[in-house]
Amino acid sequence: MRDAYHEELDAISDNLVEMARFVGSAMGRATTAMLDADLKLAESVIAGDEKVDEMQRDLENSAIALLARQQPVATDLRIVVTSLRMSADLERCGDLAQHVAKVARLRFPDSAVPRDLTATILEMGQLAQRLMAKATEVLITKDVELAMQLEQDDDEMDSLHRTLFSHLLDDRWHHGIETAVDVTLLGRYYERFADHAVSIARRVVYLVTGEHADEFVPEPEATA
Amino acid sequence: MRDAYHEELDAISDNLVEMARFVGSAMGRATTAMLDADLKLAESVIAGDEKVDEMQRDLENSAIALLARQQPVATDLRIVVTSLRMSADLERCGDLAQHVAKVARLRFPDSAVPRDLTATILEMGQLAQRLMAKATEVLITKDVELAMQLEQDDDEMDSLHRTLFSHLLDDRWHHGIETAVDVTLLGRYYERFADHAVSIARRVVYLVTGEHADEFVPEPEATA
Repeated sequence: MRDAYHEELDAISDNLVEMARFVGSAMGRATTAMLDADLKLAESVIAGDEKVDEMQRDLENSAIALLARQQPVATDLRIVVTSLRMSADLERCGDLAQHVAKVARLRFPDSAVPRDLTATILEMGQLAQRLMAKATEVLITKDVELAMQLEQDDDEMDSLHRTLFSHLLDDRWHHGIETAVDVTLLGRYYERFADHAVSIARRVVYLVTGEHADEFVPEPEATA
Repeated sequence: MRDAYHEELDAISDNLVEMARFVGSAMGRATTAMLDADLKLAESVIAGDEKVDEMQRDLENSAIALLARQQPVATDLRIVVTSLRMSADLERCGDLAQHVAKVARLRFPDSAVPRDLTATILEMGQLAQRLMAKATEVLITKDVELAMQLEQDDDEMDSLHRTLFSHLLDDRWHHGIETAVDVTLLGRYYERFADHAVSIARRVVYLVTGEHADEFVPEPEATA
């Protein structure tokens, strides 16, 4: 019985990892679709979000079935409940990738992003994807040090977001209101995506250490 | 034992209702703070969000304690898991009210909203508050018909959102980029707030009927 139980618990964890990989890739492809004005790629990201929703429903049903059948307590219970929360984060990340792809589709055959912002948006998209790749690794390894890295990556995202705003609010902005609206929303989508990745890493830290990430002070490293 | 159990289950439900009331009120006050450029009110909404986060943590801990001690199955288990999801929705609504209040604070002593958009933003703010009031009632009464009403209210929100965009993208827009950015984000905050209220109502429909709201077709009413 214990064996089936741990298999079920592992299956939930595997599903989370699969979801995280999927949405990280979706955000990468959505960014490419937007910068290259690639309609076909945008459409595939938009259609792919159904798969994320399905994964989330499956994960929720597995978690409820496990709770009902195995009635875990203590840490195992917390793992299952936390997995539910993380799957909601990931489902939302899928939506955000879809939103980016929809902006790409809406502006096709143009790119929604003017040339002087391409570099910043590309960096935001890549950073978002990197944050999710790290969150995925944290899910697999439960590496608390790596989880803490995501906080710094998120600071970098905030800094890119500020760069974006300084472009928008510069007197020399000449791309008009429509592009300003697109860029404002895109900035928000990447920022939220990053927040969810950070939130996943923080939940792992809490599961491992019993402390919230903002309270957690890592042991000072021995000087080499 | 069963009595303590149902008391715990009721307490979780009461906490959800309290959270929903709190965030509905917060969004109302944030909108007022923004339209009236009322800094003190904005500050109080911003400070109040900590209370929402605290309520959410308490609810999560109560739910986990209940799962561990009482090991509910079937419907009761689904209620507890769904409550966890709804508390996350409500926590996010608190954040969104805080975001609106922060825009108000940032633009003080001006109002972030130009006069020709005041009516639309006021309507969005009021509709957001009404949606949350209805979601709260749905939480209390489990009224499926009322829950379905939120879908229509959400269509109204989408329509207001389109109105906002048509103002933004009108050639006669003369409020500059900064205001366009503010208005874009504000529109997004109200829309997301509404989405969360709808999502809460849908989860109640699912708990009551076992069907997802989009699959649920209410019985045709007898013609009077």
